[in-house]
Amino acid sequence: MAKNVLIIGAGGIAQVTAHKIAQNASEFGALHIASRTQSKADDIIASLRAKGHQAEFTSHPLDAMDTAAVAALIRKLGIDIVINVGSAFVNMTVLEGCIETGAAYIDTAIHEDPAKVCETPPWYGNYEWKRREAAEKAGVTAILGAGFDPGVVNAYARLAEDEYFDTVRSIDIVDINAGSHGRYFATNFDPEINFREFTGTVYSWQKGAWQENKMFEVGREWDLPVVGKQTAYLSGHDEVHSLSARYPQADVRFWMGFGAHYINVFTVLQSLGLLSEQPVKTAEGLEVVPLKVVKAVLPDPASLAPDYTGKTCIGDVVKGTKDGKPGEVFIYNVADHKEAFEEVGSQGISYTAGVPPVAAAILVARGTWDVKKMANVEELPARPFLELLGELGLPTRVIDATGDHPI
Amino acid sequence: MAKNVLIIGAGGIAQVTAHKIAQNASEFGALHIASRTQSKADDIIASLRAKGHQAEFTSHPLDAMDTAAVAALIRKLGIDIVINVGSAFVNMTVLEGCIETGAAYIDTAIHEDPAKVCETPPWYGNYEWKRREAAEKAGVTAILGAGFDPGVVNAYARLAEDEYFDTVRSIDIVDINAGSHGRYFATNFDPEINFREFTGTVYSWQKGAWQENKMFEVGREWDLPVVGKQTAYLSGHDEVHSLSARYPQADVRFWMGFGAHYINVFTVLQSLGLLSEQPVKTAEGLEVVPLKVVKAVLPDPASLAPDYTGKTCIGDVVKGTKDGKPGEVFIYNVADHKEAFEEVGSQGISYTAGVPPVAAAILVARGTWDVKKMANVEELPARPFLELLGELGLPTRVIDATGDHPI
Repeated sequence: MAKNVLIIGAGGIAQVTAHKIAQNASEFGALHIASRTQSKADDIIASLRAKGHQAEFTSHPLDAMDTAAVAALIRKLGIDIVINVGSAFVNMTVLEGCIETGAAYIDTAIHEDPAKVCETPPWYGNYEWKRREAAEKAGVTAILGAGFDPGVVNAYARLAEDEYFDTVRSIDIVDINAGSHGRYFATNFDPEINFREFTGTVYSWQKGAWQENKMFEVGREWDLPVVGKQTAYLSGHDEVHSLSARYPQADVRFWMGFGAHYINVFTVLQSLGLLSEQPVKTAEGLEVVPLKVVKAVLPDPASLAPDYTGKTCIGDVVKGTKDGKPGEVFIYNVADHKEAFEEVGSQGISYTAGVPPVAAAILVARGTWDVKKMANVEELPARPFLELLGELGLPTRVIDATGDHPI
Repeated sequence: MAKNVLIIGAGGIAQVTAHKIAQNASEFGALHIASRTQSKADDIIASLRAKGHQAEFTSHPLDAMDTAAVAALIRKLGIDIVINVGSAFVNMTVLEGCIETGAAYIDTAIHEDPAKVCETPPWYGNYEWKRREAAEKAGVTAILGAGFDPGVVNAYARLAEDEYFDTVRSIDIVDINAGSHGRYFATNFDPEINFREFTGTVYSWQKGAWQENKMFEVGREWDLPVVGKQTAYLSGHDEVHSLSARYPQADVRFWMGFGAHYINVFTVLQSLGLLSEQPVKTAEGLEVVPLKVVKAVLPDPASLAPDYTGKTCIGDVVKGTKDGKPGEVFIYNVADHKEAFEEVGSQGISYTAGVPPVAAAILVARGTWDVKKMANVEELPARPFLELLGELGLPTRVIDATGDHPI
């Protein structure tokens, strides 16, 4: 029987996810989208209609921080698969709503407590994996971090394991956005979540242990297909915290590209204390969280899409050994901001994050990934996911001993 | 009869003014200090006691935005001279309290409407000069802008007029703070007032008309005594708006020194909209003025004093003609941050701003400046003011055809 789908969230990523779900409506049953602000969900449905999608899509108001409300909506609508692309603050309440009702759960980013920044590693151990037993006991499929990074890059690592190496020695995930939005400064997704990635300790997994660095402390130039030579910095990121569990013998690092201007603005804001999530008091006695004010003055990430040009290149440099011989592969995707906007009305960063959970949902609906337990993406078969992503607009290429070619 | 003095304000400049008043208590009668937050006035009195000053000094709570409250306090205490070193937002309510009661009025900075930034020139015409007739009718001495700049630099221009030139052709006021507070970033006085100086149009008076530039658009290197070669930028400042009325035939420009780091931080904050005094709304619906949040995260200017080292150099490059021959003089003062802190517990910027109104008050008390009308500093005899300032710790030097020497 066709599976009913509920998208939770109505931001830039939800926009992409909804379009891809609509493009693949024949894979699913009834389609729903819920958001704290129902009108934002309605706007997304209107954008589907503008692209000519006929499939029925229904909006609902939902406070996703309320597990009982999530469970009630799932039951009322008979939802089989929840795609959670809302704020990272709602992951656990939505997951618990799924465990309670038996619906499958898919998200694209790790859970965050709004009051905490950069908790102790592995991050998945603080929230998600504590619900692992409960998910398995309930027979609930819960796929964690099925965006691009985390998500597709985890599948790249698994592909390297499956098809290239006996032993994986290192995984360097490199995320370069060589696009331009033409604004003085903007973040590509919610500034509150975006900056939180960089204000805390940078954790990497090296030589079998957690290593700690500061943001922008370790930089390295990478020479990549299409985007060319780019400087990327060792950064904290979700996937390091799950890949290190599957590949404890490997070094697992995440590198994010930043231009000098971005680093300068970030450094000024952070040095002044304006990226703090701890409230300050104005001279007039008003309690304000500086980061929320920075968010209020920055462009809405969704507003960047129409003017965004250029490409992203995200991939995994994986080193390992096969039959005792060392080797290296680069498995990657190149996406184009303008093409993303023309197809789904979003910029490339949202596109790369919003398409993969649809691939995951299709694989759950088809049964390929309906594992009835909690899983990070690297624990699931990689090739069906990557091949499906190729059909959905995110083709995978690989540079190996034979050259640069599609997988 | 000895004149009773009331200081309004209890910030960094008030601290200096109170210490200098206490050092010169014999010039006055009863000494009072009033602030919205009485405890801040009490802290200043405690710091006087710590320096061994015996003179009676009494604190009062006062909402200086309330003319009736100002007038009532003046009457109750029998005040003859009000030194207003509170926020620039209270100037007109305090001035009106003085006009109503007959007390002399002295301030150190132009009036500002909290809701407006950078009004049309001449700025004094928007508020102060509209009360000129009322002051004269009431026989009230009202001395405007008697800090360092505006204030002492206006007297420097007058000294050049009195002692060097038949006709003044140009006045370039150069303000260099070559000191270091050792913090990542800080403003030397209230950030809200400080940034307002730079966010609007830069008005200068050139070729008989108001010229408009943007901040940091026009920079120039100056080679000055003690502080050496320094880059200063054409900036908007109070004194240009009164000196241009007395010297309409001269070019009147104000130059403020900034390092590359200051300009970078300022540019980032301004470009992002974080220096705006217009409220923004956070995602949670809280209305916040970004500039007030920036102020809240920056160091309290008063807290910089203990670590402040280095010197300031502020002066006027005046060009003119005497008996048909062109000439140039540089009239200036050099102040030392550390010496200021040791003497009065404040940094050099507060020191240079807080001492001159005391010289003005002494001259009013002695009668020399008790002109019974409103006057900008350049309309008053310059030499007695500058000689008194020399005694009070701000000696004037001049570089003229004969070399570099005291006035």
